[in-house]
Amino acid sequence: MSVALVGAGPGDPDLITCRGLRLIQQCQVLVYDRLVGPELVAEAPLDAILVDRDGIDQDEVNDLLVDYGRLGLRVVRLKGGDPFVFGRGGEEALVLRDAGIEVEVVSGVSSFAAVPAAAGIPVTHRGLAQEATIVMGHDADLDFARLAASPGTLVFFMGARSLPCIAAGLLAAGKHPDTPAAVIANGTRSDQEVVTSVLAEIAEAAAAVPTPALIVIGEVVSLAGAIGPAQRHYGAAARLLV
Amino acid sequence: MSVALVGAGPGDPDLITCRGLRLIQQCQVLVYDRLVGPELVAEAPLDAILVDRDGIDQDEVNDLLVDYGRLGLRVVRLKGGDPFVFGRGGEEALVLRDAGIEVEVVSGVSSFAAVPAAAGIPVTHRGLAQEATIVMGHDADLDFARLAASPGTLVFFMGARSLPCIAAGLLAAGKHPDTPAAVIANGTRSDQEVVTSVLAEIAEAAAAVPTPALIVIGEVVSLAGAIGPAQRHYGAAARLLV
Repeated sequence: MSVALVGAGPGDPDLITCRGLRLIQQCQVLVYDRLVGPELVAEAPLDAILVDRDGIDQDEVNDLLVDYGRLGLRVVRLKGGDPFVFGRGGEEALVLRDAGIEVEVVSGVSSFAAVPAAAGIPVTHRGLAQEATIVMGHDADLDFARLAASPGTLVFFMGARSLPCIAAGLLAAGKHPDTPAAVIANGTRSDQEVVTSVLAEIAEAAAAVPTPALIVIGEVVSLAGAIGPAQRHYGAAARLLV
Repeated sequence: MSVALVGAGPGDPDLITCRGLRLIQQCQVLVYDRLVGPELVAEAPLDAILVDRDGIDQDEVNDLLVDYGRLGLRVVRLKGGDPFVFGRGGEEALVLRDAGIEVEVVSGVSSFAAVPAAAGIPVTHRGLAQEATIVMGHDADLDFARLAASPGTLVFFMGARSLPCIAAGLLAAGKHPDTPAAVIANGTRSDQEVVTSVLAEIAEAAAAVPTPALIVIGEVVSLAGAIGPAQRHYGAAARLLV
């Protein structure tokens, strides 16, 4: 009885781990999130049970994982990014362990650094940022005074709708209006969209960017032009790889 | 002319990305860091030029990458973790772009979340941490007042030698002495060592842990026992996978 919580990576299917891809290819049940690339779902065996998690609430997902786990099936719970970075993987792991089911956590490439990287932005860089903070941005009820005081890079997940509040909050707390800022949607995928601006103008500049998107605020964003995404590899279907 | 900056992942060779492994297997020159698993270096073609970066300073590494890149060879610069998370990948990318050489950045699984995960610790967890900060810990000249005020998880890279200073600094700044804390060496590998304690006692408890090690401070560490590393997969050699 074992369930694997697998990180699918940030979007490009080629950025899944070797371990994660192999578990998908050998699974009997695949429970996957909406943000997972269809190329990875297509890697499951033809006779695997596929469960699209979209529209199923978290308690039902937990029950499903326990039920399939108890049947002794090889279950993969596939999540965007990393299961333990805003992925609720900890909650699922606790429920499974409480039910006596073994859990394997297969970390994935989090959007945290990979999505900025795909836009030419290193989240840390000597002389610009020796620290980085990731924040869940969807409610915007945040301690802006403390965040604005950070000399490091700020990365907000799920914050696109709250972007006007986040930018206003940081500005009101004293963050310099010229601080470089970026919003990145569909990061690492061929339909990636990147908007860069400064903190005072980013909300207006990025108003048309689709959600979900990652917000990056800090001096490292100024490197985007010099490092640039122009040469970036866009993922071929993972099926081609093995 | 192209150089790929590839993240090797946190230690377990099975946690490299599919894209990263394929680039190693097709390279003509591999310049690798000391912390990269030997299993991944062994994936390079038998006739590839292998350069162990250990003992070569950063300027020489930059020159090497430019020289090999200009020769038109398929060059892979393999780094532990993610090239853009305390990996100096940004510096190498800038030097290469300045020299007119194409750069592809292949993000890797950072130790940031994967090493805590291998010890049963999710860096974010609803009700415990909706924020996480990564900090370069090697000089311990840090703004402890600001870090101590964070309600999120603190993850210090390269901080093992500075651990007594880091713990004392956070305590003096008002961080609760009972805050759960962990130190993890060789994370995700079969020789992983984990020490968990509380902030007031972690420096003494972890004094014998080898370096480099990751330090994790925050309420999420309390989940280590319940999620636990007992069922964790330890990586087989990556060569077996493809």
